[in-house]
Amino acid sequence: MAAYDFSSVRLFVDAALAPGAEFPLGLEPTNYLANVLRLRAGDELLVFNGRDGEWRARISDLKKRAATLELVEQTRPQTAPCDLWYLFAPLKHARLDYMVQKAVEMGAAVLQPVMTRRTQVSRINLDRMRANAIEAAEQCGILDLAEVRAEVGLEALLATWPAGRTLVFCDEDAAAGGAAAALGAAAEGPLAVLIGPEGGFDPAERARLMTVPKVVRLSLGPRILRADTAAVAALALVQAVRGDWR
Amino acid sequence: MAAYDFSSVRLFVDAALAPGAEFPLGLEPTNYLANVLRLRAGDELLVFNGRDGEWRARISDLKKRAATLELVEQTRPQTAPCDLWYLFAPLKHARLDYMVQKAVEMGAAVLQPVMTRRTQVSRINLDRMRANAIEAAEQCGILDLAEVRAEVGLEALLATWPAGRTLVFCDEDAAAGGAAAALGAAAEGPLAVLIGPEGGFDPAERARLMTVPKVVRLSLGPRILRADTAAVAALALVQAVRGDWR
Repeated sequence: MAAYDFSSVRLFVDAALAPGAEFPLGLEPTNYLANVLRLRAGDELLVFNGRDGEWRARISDLKKRAATLELVEQTRPQTAPCDLWYLFAPLKHARLDYMVQKAVEMGAAVLQPVMTRRTQVSRINLDRMRANAIEAAEQCGILDLAEVRAEVGLEALLATWPAGRTLVFCDEDAAAGGAAAALGAAAEGPLAVLIGPEGGFDPAERARLMTVPKVVRLSLGPRILRADTAAVAALALVQAVRGDWR
Repeated sequence: MAAYDFSSVRLFVDAALAPGAEFPLGLEPTNYLANVLRLRAGDELLVFNGRDGEWRARISDLKKRAATLELVEQTRPQTAPCDLWYLFAPLKHARLDYMVQKAVEMGAAVLQPVMTRRTQVSRINLDRMRANAIEAAEQCGILDLAEVRAEVGLEALLATWPAGRTLVFCDEDAAAGGAAAALGAAAEGPLAVLIGPEGGFDPAERARLMTVPKVVRLSLGPRILRADTAAVAALALVQAVRGDWR
């Protein structure tokens, strides 16, 4: 893949993208293009909507409160998302923003907050999570948009766990070692990665997790990782051993 | 390993740590203990110096400008660092702080900024890097302190490259796939991981890198990662396949 230019402007839009399409932008993206990026009528940018690939678009009109974009050509076809769920005990504010962005970069298609006994955060701003998922996709050239799900308790999550999906849970109480081998030996089929709170899972939760038919208990080494670091590390191992980095 | 309590106070100190030792703290750590954490004389915390393991210490005296600590007992012996170098094109400010912290969490023993043609940052604050390395060690219970080296040009780095050390360089122009296999097939012995700037390596740099006797050109998958994400992902793979996560 050619070197990616992080400085190119990529904008997520709601509109359907097809040859010749022309559509208005709302107040917020108009403000971003005009006042943050200082673009003008005639300037070009890249747009995507999570369904119709990536397109080069021209600003055909730029009024104070509504820019209009005109599609020039498709630059990349739509990609299929990885069938990879990322489940996590939510963190506070900036660290949650960061974790969501990183999970999207690593290819998670579903972002699912999970409330556990030691989770310290009780309220989650799903709109903010969605905005962070979009921002990460814009920045990193990802064309499919991760689905942000509402928070769920661990027991409720497991009560309806899909039989065919392997659950990889990262456990700092697991004996260190064998992470790559454990993932390599896991059953074929789709996966989910679960990162618990920084206080870890409690014994009852761990016992319950181990009852999932296709479960992998993963150690992330002898050092203790912050939850956002564990997210990237676990997703990297899963992608390398079982995902689209193979 | 037992669940790690991120809320326990761990302080890096310069003093030699031995049974019965008592020593004063400077103005900055005194201020941190007294005014940020609101500790008082008699309160306890954990201290380490990168050489003598981790100790429980009691605040035996707390004056406005100088706290005195008295060691109670050693809580953990000194650990040996991983022989893993982390080499990176520096990023700006907050993102560099973050990358340094993450590399320490992942077990890097040496932090070496490398200037490449597309590196966008020209001045590096090494004291700030050291402070971030210490903060990450304090937060994550790491007892050995990563060595922060002054920046060096890529050619100068390679001109004195140690023959026995494998250089793993992450290249977004490499064909995606085979990351775990490539690492598994690498020569035995110590490793270094190199993450380039977000513009990637230029062709001459890539060609030069490929002349290193023990070199692994690593793809981090089909999506483009931010440099700080690539750092954690690459170090996770190296630790899992070749390092202390095995």
